[in-house]
Amino acid sequence: MKFSVQNVKNGCRLGLITDLGKNGNKSIETPMCMLYTRGGNAPHLTLDVLKKIQRVPPMAHMYLSSLAEHSEAVTQFKEGIANFCGMQDFAVYCSLHDPATEVPSGYNEKSGTAIWTKGGKYKLDVNHFMQIQEAFQPDICEALYDGDTNKDSTRKRLLKAMDRTLNYLDEIQNKRKSSQKLQKTALFGVIEGGFSVQERQKSAHETVTRNVDGFVLAGFHNNGPKTEMFDLSQVTEICQKTMECLPENKPRLMQNAWRPDKVMEGIALGIDMFDSSYPYIVTERGCGLVFKFNVCASPEEQKGNGDHLLGFQINLADKKYVDDFGPLLEGCTCYACQNFTRSYINHLLNTSELLSSVLLMIHNFHHYFEFFHQIRQSLQDGSFDELNSLIQKQKPVDS
Amino acid sequence: MKFSVQNVKNGCRLGLITDLGKNGNKSIETPMCMLYTRGGNAPHLTLDVLKKIQRVPPMAHMYLSSLAEHSEAVTQFKEGIANFCGMQDFAVYCSLHDPATEVPSGYNEKSGTAIWTKGGKYKLDVNHFMQIQEAFQPDICEALYDGDTNKDSTRKRLLKAMDRTLNYLDEIQNKRKSSQKLQKTALFGVIEGGFSVQERQKSAHETVTRNVDGFVLAGFHNNGPKTEMFDLSQVTEICQKTMECLPENKPRLMQNAWRPDKVMEGIALGIDMFDSSYPYIVTERGCGLVFKFNVCASPEEQKGNGDHLLGFQINLADKKYVDDFGPLLEGCTCYACQNFTRSYINHLLNTSELLSSVLLMIHNFHHYFEFFHQIRQSLQDGSFDELNSLIQKQKPVDS
Repeated sequence: MKFSVQNVKNGCRLGLITDLGKNGNKSIETPMCMLYTRGGNAPHLTLDVLKKIQRVPPMAHMYLSSLAEHSEAVTQFKEGIANFCGMQDFAVYCSLHDPATEVPSGYNEKSGTAIWTKGGKYKLDVNHFMQIQEAFQPDICEALYDGDTNKDSTRKRLLKAMDRTLNYLDEIQNKRKSSQKLQKTALFGVIEGGFSVQERQKSAHETVTRNVDGFVLAGFHNNGPKTEMFDLSQVTEICQKTMECLPENKPRLMQNAWRPDKVMEGIALGIDMFDSSYPYIVTERGCGLVFKFNVCASPEEQKGNGDHLLGFQINLADKKYVDDFGPLLEGCTCYACQNFTRSYINHLLNTSELLSSVLLMIHNFHHYFEFFHQIRQSLQDGSFDELNSLIQKQKPVDS
Repeated sequence: MKFSVQNVKNGCRLGLITDLGKNGNKSIETPMCMLYTRGGNAPHLTLDVLKKIQRVPPMAHMYLSSLAEHSEAVTQFKEGIANFCGMQDFAVYCSLHDPATEVPSGYNEKSGTAIWTKGGKYKLDVNHFMQIQEAFQPDICEALYDGDTNKDSTRKRLLKAMDRTLNYLDEIQNKRKSSQKLQKTALFGVIEGGFSVQERQKSAHETVTRNVDGFVLAGFHNNGPKTEMFDLSQVTEICQKTMECLPENKPRLMQNAWRPDKVMEGIALGIDMFDSSYPYIVTERGCGLVFKFNVCASPEEQKGNGDHLLGFQINLADKKYVDDFGPLLEGCTCYACQNFTRSYINHLLNTSELLSSVLLMIHNFHHYFEFFHQIRQSLQDGSFDELNSLIQKQKPVDS
C-alpha cells in the first residue's frame, strides 16, 4: 500500500491511496470514508442494493467486536473475511471496535484488550489477535491497542495505555514478519495519549519509528452514538501537535460518529480516513440526512424543500410527515427518494417495518458518500472554505 | 376480473384469472400464492431486490391491520395504496387481517369488526371500511366479515358471524354501486360457518346470490404462525360440501400459514388462491426452506445436500451450521444461495444482524414461488400425485 498527498491547504490534505489489496490494484482518493458494515456487510442491505448506491467506497470497515466470535469458522473457510462475507470486491480495513457502539470502560489488561461481542466480553491478547488476522486476511489491519482513555484519565493511565499499545505493536510486527498470510496486509499503528499533548507526541514519535503503513488516532473517547457530539475544538492543539510528528506520506485515520460539521473539522486537522458509522446511527434513530453541500446552488436551492437550514437530519417518524408526499430529500437521486414518499417511510417507521431501515440506509449512505465526494471536489477546486461555512451554518442549535 | 378453470382433476383446479387490475390487463395462473407484504411491501426487501427473485406473483397481499392507521394519508395521496407503497406494478388484494399474526378473539360487534394495528384495537364498521377501500382502490377487495369462530364455537355464535358477514356484504354492495372509485375493484365475499357443514353451506348459498367475484373461506381459526399446524383433514368434508355450492368460474381463497403439505391438501380441496405468509414466518424464526419439489430428480438428487428428507426447513442459527460452507440449499439459484454460505447466515443470525432476514426472505420467497410454479406444472403434466407424495414424505415427524 502506498499513499501520497497531492495537495495541502490549511492543514487539509487531498491524497491518494494506491497499490492496495491482495493484488495491489485498488486506489482510493482521500479524504475518504470507509463503508460501515455490521457482521461484515452494509447494514440492512444486500450487495446488489449496495452496488446501486453511487460512490460506495471501495473499502469496507469491519471490526473484531462483531466478527471475532465467528473467527474459527473463518479460519476453516481459509479464504479470508472479505470472501466469507461475500465482500470480495472490497478492500477490508479491520479495526478492533465498532465506532457506533460504546465500549465499556475498565476492562483492558496488560496482557490484552477487551472487545465486546454479542456474547459479552471477549479478551484479545496478541496471539489470539494474530490468529484472527491470519484467518481474516484484511487489506489493512489496525494494531491491537488500549484506547480506554479520555479527558479525565490520569497521566499514569495514559502512560499505561501508551506502553501497552506500543508493546502490542512490537509483538505484532515481529509475528507478522513470519506470517505468510499477512505479507500483503498493511498495518496501522495506533497513537494514544488521551488529552495530553506531551504523551500524544511521545506516542506518535514512538509509533513512527515502528515503520507502520498508517496511523490511527484513538484514546479520545469510548465510541458510540454520543461521539456525534464529540467536541473536536478541545483537541485541536493536541491533534495538530501530533500530526506534526507524523510523516506526510502515511494516511491518518480516526473513528467517530462523524457528523458533517465534525468531518469538516477533522479534515482541517489533517485526517484522511473516516468511518461512516454516522449515517448508520442516523438510520437507526429513524432519521434521514437532509443537509446541503452543494456550494454552487443558489441560496434558494440550498434552502430547498421548505426545510430551514438548521440540523443535518429530519426525523421521519414525526407526525408532521404523515401526509408529506414529497421524497425524503427533494432532488436526491437515490433509490429511496426516487421511489418513496416521506409519508410512506413515516408509515413504515410507525408500524415498525424494517423496510424503513433499508430505505433510510440507502438514502443516508448515498447522501454521505456524495458529501465526501463533494469534499474532495472542494479541495480540488478551492471551494473547501465555502463548503465548510455552508455545513457549519446547518449545525443543530443545541450543539 | 374474469376467472376460468382450465382443468379439474380429483378436485384440484388449474385456472386463470384475467382482465385484472385497473387497466384489466393482468393475468394470473392458479393455483397461485399472493405476495405477502408488511406495511405494503415485501418484508425486508426493496422492490429492486424483489424483482430479482424469479416468479414473484403479480398480486400483492395487503391487509388493513397494517395499513388502516395510515388511511388518512392515503386518502390525501389520492392515487391508491399500490402507488402509495411504490407497488404500482402489482395488483393488490386487500384483506382484513394479517395471516401471520394471531387475531385476539372476542372483540367483534354487530356494528363492526375489530382489527389490530400497531396502535391497538381498531374498529371497522362498513362506512369506515368503505372510506378506506375508496382511498386504497385495491384490485380485489375482501368484504368486511366476522370470522371470529373456530371448532368450539356454538351454533349461536356461528349464526351471528354468518349474519353479520352477509349484512356487511349487502351494505358494501350497495355503497359500491355509487362509488366511482371502486367500479374496477373486484369484490370477494367471505363464507362463514365455522366447523358446521350446514352453516357453511347456508353461508355459501347466500354469498353466491350476492354476485361477488370470488370467495374467501374464513372462520376456521384466528390466523398466526400456529395455523401452520392447522389440520385440514378435520375440515375436508366441510370444505368439499361448501365448494359444491360455489360456481366453478369464481376463484376461492383461504388464508393460512400454508406449509407445503397443507398447500397440497388445500389444492385438493379446490382452493385457487393462497397467501405466502409461510415463507415470512419461516424467515422470522431464522429458518430456510429446503424441501424438495422436483419430481423429475433422481431419488439421490431429491435427497440432496446431505439433509434427510424430513422437515421443510432448517434452522440456520443452529451451531451445526457454524462451519458449513455450502449454500443454504444446494442447487438453488437465488441470490442468497449464489452468494452466501450457511456459515455466514449462521453468523448474521447469531449476531442479530438484520441482513440475515433479508437473505432468508429472498431464499424463502424464491423457493416458495418456485414450488407454486411446480404445482401448476404438475397439474398440467399429470404429476400432481407424485409431487404430493414427495411433499408429504417430507412432513416433520412431530406433526
